[in-house]
Amino acid sequence: MREVGIGLLGLGNVGGPFARQLAERAEALAAETGVRPRIARALVRDPSRRRELPAGLSEALGTDPAALLRDPAIEIVVELLGGLEPAGSLVAEAIARGKHVVTANKLLLAERGEELFGAAAARGVALRYEGAVCGGLPIVRILREALEGDEVLAVHGVVNGTTNYVLGRMGEAGASLEEALREAQAKGYAEADPTLDVSGGDAAQKLCLIAGLAFGVRVRQGELLVEGIERVTPRDFEAARELGCVVKLLAVARREGERLDLRVHPAMVPERGPLASIRGALNGLLVETRALGPLVLSAPGAGGEATASAVLADVLDVARLGGAAALPFSGRAPARLVPRAEIVSAYHLRFTVDDAPGVLAGLTAALGRRGISIAALHQRERREASEGPVTLVSLTHRAREGDVLAAVTEIDALPTTRAPTRLVRVEVEGALAPWRP
Amino acid sequence: MREVGIGLLGLGNVGGPFARQLAERAEALAAETGVRPRIARALVRDPSRRRELPAGLSEALGTDPAALLRDPAIEIVVELLGGLEPAGSLVAEAIARGKHVVTANKLLLAERGEELFGAAAARGVALRYEGAVCGGLPIVRILREALEGDEVLAVHGVVNGTTNYVLGRMGEAGASLEEALREAQAKGYAEADPTLDVSGGDAAQKLCLIAGLAFGVRVRQGELLVEGIERVTPRDFEAARELGCVVKLLAVARREGERLDLRVHPAMVPERGPLASIRGALNGLLVETRALGPLVLSAPGAGGEATASAVLADVLDVARLGGAAALPFSGRAPARLVPRAEIVSAYHLRFTVDDAPGVLAGLTAALGRRGISIAALHQRERREASEGPVTLVSLTHRAREGDVLAAVTEIDALPTTRAPTRLVRVEVEGALAPWRP
Repeated sequence: MREVGIGLLGLGNVGGPFARQLAERAEALAAETGVRPRIARALVRDPSRRRELPAGLSEALGTDPAALLRDPAIEIVVELLGGLEPAGSLVAEAIARGKHVVTANKLLLAERGEELFGAAAARGVALRYEGAVCGGLPIVRILREALEGDEVLAVHGVVNGTTNYVLGRMGEAGASLEEALREAQAKGYAEADPTLDVSGGDAAQKLCLIAGLAFGVRVRQGELLVEGIERVTPRDFEAARELGCVVKLLAVARREGERLDLRVHPAMVPERGPLASIRGALNGLLVETRALGPLVLSAPGAGGEATASAVLADVLDVARLGGAAALPFSGRAPARLVPRAEIVSAYHLRFTVDDAPGVLAGLTAALGRRGISIAALHQRERREASEGPVTLVSLTHRAREGDVLAAVTEIDALPTTRAPTRLVRVEVEGALAPWRP
Repeated sequence: MREVGIGLLGLGNVGGPFARQLAERAEALAAETGVRPRIARALVRDPSRRRELPAGLSEALGTDPAALLRDPAIEIVVELLGGLEPAGSLVAEAIARGKHVVTANKLLLAERGEELFGAAAARGVALRYEGAVCGGLPIVRILREALEGDEVLAVHGVVNGTTNYVLGRMGEAGASLEEALREAQAKGYAEADPTLDVSGGDAAQKLCLIAGLAFGVRVRQGELLVEGIERVTPRDFEAARELGCVVKLLAVARREGERLDLRVHPAMVPERGPLASIRGALNGLLVETRALGPLVLSAPGAGGEATASAVLADVLDVARLGGAAALPFSGRAPARLVPRAEIVSAYHLRFTVDDAPGVLAGLTAALGRRGISIAALHQRERREASEGPVTLVSLTHRAREGDVLAAVTEIDALPTTRAPTRLVRVEVEGALAPWRP
């Protein structure tokens, strides 16, 4: 039996469940693998705070990170502090001292991933991060190991549980964004300040990690097209329903020849397809590869217990395999992205126009001149008999986004257009095509 | 760059795609991992047969397994012959010679798994088998690695693509079993002799492997409750629809205290839940664990390309990690199973009885005496005005199967019962409970 010393940074929302899960499973794991991971030291802010701790852990509590990092009995540092500092300095020093690191810190990897993975590779230690991407959903492991011999063509993800819950409530219960957000906060699915989720920023951080793993490239968040759910309205859900779709905040990573199409935005997806079935605060991914066909995965994407379980799986791999458990973070080559104007998609376009002769001709001319062809177009019934603008709802065939934006700009400048045209991408390519509306 | 020699047994339906995928990815993998797997020898029956082969492979073809196994350049033997012999002898000898083995041979593992894994462990070599369970769905990896630190509570699986396709066609298109099977054969989803699929035998083999991985026990197929889809009728689909369910051939492995509830049978599952969304010839699994919450996976469960991709992922792990890539096959302890009479489930019961006073009282008394409580009961509208038996459709709350069978035996013996009562389990426990009809 080999004992492997762990230095645990943080005993909070994830660290607490991690310590408990490890204690509960230690005997069974030792019997199975011949390795017994043990928390030798745990860094906390206030050791006197009352906590429910597994047996033996209270003696391991301390406030001095230097003592933890200097301890030769510690082979693996588990960083569950979150935030950039002191987490970043401590991880960097752990690596410099030849310790393996397991972290669930997405922000740290987004900001300093390249530097830290470079240091780990140079030092021959493992730096693992399953818990940093979609909590308990084992996407890092699947992309890096199960699909290593295959070639990823596209990943479609619902990777933010907060917005998925919020959009679900808006769609099913007719709630407003504000109401749905308050409900999500009450249920613990949304933070007090939900900006990072609502804006698509959290999904974009995850997409950078996923794209790096799937395509072996380096992606920076600032390069992506990112739209949040702030402008999603009840009318979008109504239009989606008419199309046989639901509205999701999608993270898309797709290979287009030598370039990558990477984006985060609300999209309509087929209601009978695999992405629509990712409900509530779940996370889910649809991975298309050359050999495998569509692989669909879903699981709770956040929460202390689920994230701790992913961290523990990484710790067990590192305890068993040491430096051989290292996974590349992403490729050295920067990603070549498809510029926004060249994205190809289907679009839901909703026009608010005068109910007058010639209006329709003006719209279709603006679209047709740019080669945008219409799959469906119909006028919403007017709610009142009174005069006033009407709503025209259309679905385009696949078109270049640059062309669609140009057509919309032209249409919005027409004197008969009464409100800005609403545009929502409709995602029905590749593995989603069988469910095309 | 380290070259790892592979001895490939079989260049057929899986072996051919494996050789091609490996050749296509070799450069990228070598750059990424520092290891270059290369097929040093490939065993075929007839080397003169015309084949499309990757460059360099035609010189590696041979018919002499002894030469392949003796070749010291070969570190990994990839067994894709299928069947018990000669596959079994060749795998055993490869292990005895200290070579790692990767196989996609479910039958071989079902029959000789214990012996072969014992030999591999004693010899310190890896024996991997992701391709043997649900083709490209990485369930072995997920159960053994991603969930290693967690505790599996239950696995619900749709693990046979043939029967899933057939049941789908019966349910959606109203096809008969025979029609749907012919259609499946025409599409290549069913073999000329589909008995192993239709009878539930293939699903039971997979369930043994899955239960061994999930619960660390040894299970023999003969111990399981296995019912095939032979007796599923159009009326079952009708009844399922009325309940808000669909009919699936389910493989269930659930921990019940110290015992395991393991079974394969047709069941009604909620139509909005995660198992219903596993459509066509896909395979899918719903895994419940203590920490993670429900993890849902689906992918094509068969097909040469998908299976080859799983085999290649195993080969890459072994090439990188050698004996450290070994995974335990299952535990040493035999599983203690819940006997059939003690299974607890909800049941759809369909009675064919005289339309006469007192009949309903007789049914409810037989159920009530055994503590079986009824969640819903209604009479089907009679199709014709003529006299004759009526159909009563009921859904029970959770009940012991022994009690339900005893009640049905009693009811079927009543003079007012005109045909044997139909019983279909309704699976709405655990992670399926949110979708309970």
